[in-house]
Amino acid sequence: MNDHVTLSLDEARRLTEAAMTAAGALPEVARSVAAALVAAEASGHAGHGLSRVPSYVAQCRAGKADGRARPTLEQPAPAALRVDAAHGFAYPAFDLLIPALAELAGRTGIALGAVRRSNHFGVAGAHCEALAELGRVALIFGNAPAAMAPWGGARPALGTNPIAFAAPMPDGPPLVVDMATSTVPRGKILAARELGAPIPEGWALGPDGRPTTDPETALKGTVAPMAGPKGAALALMVEVLSACLGGGALGVHASSLFDGEGPPPDLAQTLIAIDPELIAPGFAERMAALAAALAGIEGARLPGQRRLQARARAQAEGLRVPRKLNERLRALAAGD
Amino acid sequence: MNDHVTLSLDEARRLTEAAMTAAGALPEVARSVAAALVAAEASGHAGHGLSRVPSYVAQCRAGKADGRARPTLEQPAPAALRVDAAHGFAYPAFDLLIPALAELAGRTGIALGAVRRSNHFGVAGAHCEALAELGRVALIFGNAPAAMAPWGGARPALGTNPIAFAAPMPDGPPLVVDMATSTVPRGKILAARELGAPIPEGWALGPDGRPTTDPETALKGTVAPMAGPKGAALALMVEVLSACLGGGALGVHASSLFDGEGPPPDLAQTLIAIDPELIAPGFAERMAALAAALAGIEGARLPGQRRLQARARAQAEGLRVPRKLNERLRALAAGD
Repeated sequence: MNDHVTLSLDEARRLTEAAMTAAGALPEVARSVAAALVAAEASGHAGHGLSRVPSYVAQCRAGKADGRARPTLEQPAPAALRVDAAHGFAYPAFDLLIPALAELAGRTGIALGAVRRSNHFGVAGAHCEALAELGRVALIFGNAPAAMAPWGGARPALGTNPIAFAAPMPDGPPLVVDMATSTVPRGKILAARELGAPIPEGWALGPDGRPTTDPETALKGTVAPMAGPKGAALALMVEVLSACLGGGALGVHASSLFDGEGPPPDLAQTLIAIDPELIAPGFAERMAALAAALAGIEGARLPGQRRLQARARAQAEGLRVPRKLNERLRALAAGD
Repeated sequence: MNDHVTLSLDEARRLTEAAMTAAGALPEVARSVAAALVAAEASGHAGHGLSRVPSYVAQCRAGKADGRARPTLEQPAPAALRVDAAHGFAYPAFDLLIPALAELAGRTGIALGAVRRSNHFGVAGAHCEALAELGRVALIFGNAPAAMAPWGGARPALGTNPIAFAAPMPDGPPLVVDMATSTVPRGKILAARELGAPIPEGWALGPDGRPTTDPETALKGTVAPMAGPKGAALALMVEVLSACLGGGALGVHASSLFDGEGPPPDLAQTLIAIDPELIAPGFAERMAALAAALAGIEGARLPGQRRLQARARAQAEGLRVPRKLNERLRALAAGD
């Protein structure tokens, strides 16, 4: 137990903000990044949480991510928005896009927001959840550096390209669906390597295209797609809907999100928002009926419950953070 | 070999049209249904092809599907269309929606088309492919009668709810992604029962929620979701995006698509069309770059290749149809 410390949410935000500012980020960028990473950590998504601060700082210091970039928004078509994240961090771009997209969908019925020259966008579902809290049904697609092979191949060409979705519920928090199109996120293989532990069969393939349980071999090879060819096809769909649609580096060209080396990752994300009441009145009633139908089935669990439990715990008890990471955060906050 | 016969595409269309007309369908409805079922058969999707004629006829004769319904289109919001399929077959509704949706997206950037009071919509990817041939990137979500349990449960609540996607390619036919969110479509379990063959482990769960290889037990239980909880979550997302968004029966209430019993299935489908050149110029160039990156990986196969091969074969050699089905089609075409 004493290899972990407990941080309050405020303290975690303050430390992250200070680390980002010390790395040269604008105060509003640091604030946006800190809010997103701490929300991810509090929701139980440690892989998109405070563990990212060191690599964000490295990117910022190296100029790979521009901590002083201010995103800009334009409207290329009546139901479409486009945000240029200007090779900065992704969160300020989403802060700008989300309320504008919700408002536009409230007039047009559906609206698309394409973010380009972007970076790691954290918990995919969080952006959809924010739209659902504004009354919108939302979908997001974002590409990532190549880690998965196309079906039949053994070399990485596609990222673990996540898909997420959210919808407002008549009572309580939004329904959120969020998944990598790989069997597991790459971060879980990195974590196994750190622990010196084998990975379960089915997670990854070695550079020879054959299944492996060795994390080192896996990291030289590819992450396995969820559900075999279906996951590989979904990852390709996400690539088209993000990088090809909005304009950005293909996963095969995108630079790493974990270090300060090379050019900006130049990733792209596409967010779709729908005003359900404009499509057909009675959406809330139909969602209530769906929830009741599912609640009537013994043992059934809705997706996204873990994040709500994690948040309640974080609110009550603070964040349990590895001692080493806490030390690293404090050093970065002090500008070391 | 002599348990099969070969039909030309024209002959298959003529027989299907005659069967539908004899069952009371309007000539234009019969034409639309025949075109869709023969295209599915020719693309190698026998489960959505001529094998459906007997159940379509049964639905039509019983008035479960209204063969004389004429779909109507309205525009509830500037970027949204809504088609009332009027408890008829789905294809005439899509024939009406697809060109209108492509045209609208060409003005707004993105447009949503919700089909309600609908029926079996066949090959999900075919509707996206038709939009891609009009220059649009497309997504479709449609619900189906309950066959899959929500995650953690053992009773069916969600259909095998497919997702499909298509995008125009600079050279050659569109890229098409099309999948049931279950491990396999329910039709494959029905086919195994017909053959008296066991099903592979992983396809289905019995009514006790445990894996089974017996098709009979499987049909009393549930189809397994693809990729476990991820597939169950995707099926739920599809339910929200179709039945809850557009207005329609939840899978748990929808009647069977395989017989003439009960009320109309009242399914819903949601089609999304995007004009990629309005979002960000250069889409075709980026798709060419993606295709080149994938083609550079030994062994990589793009999704949707089988349908192209099947179509070429069907064009050259005609359709290979079980002798019994051919006899059934001829009897139905004669009004028996």
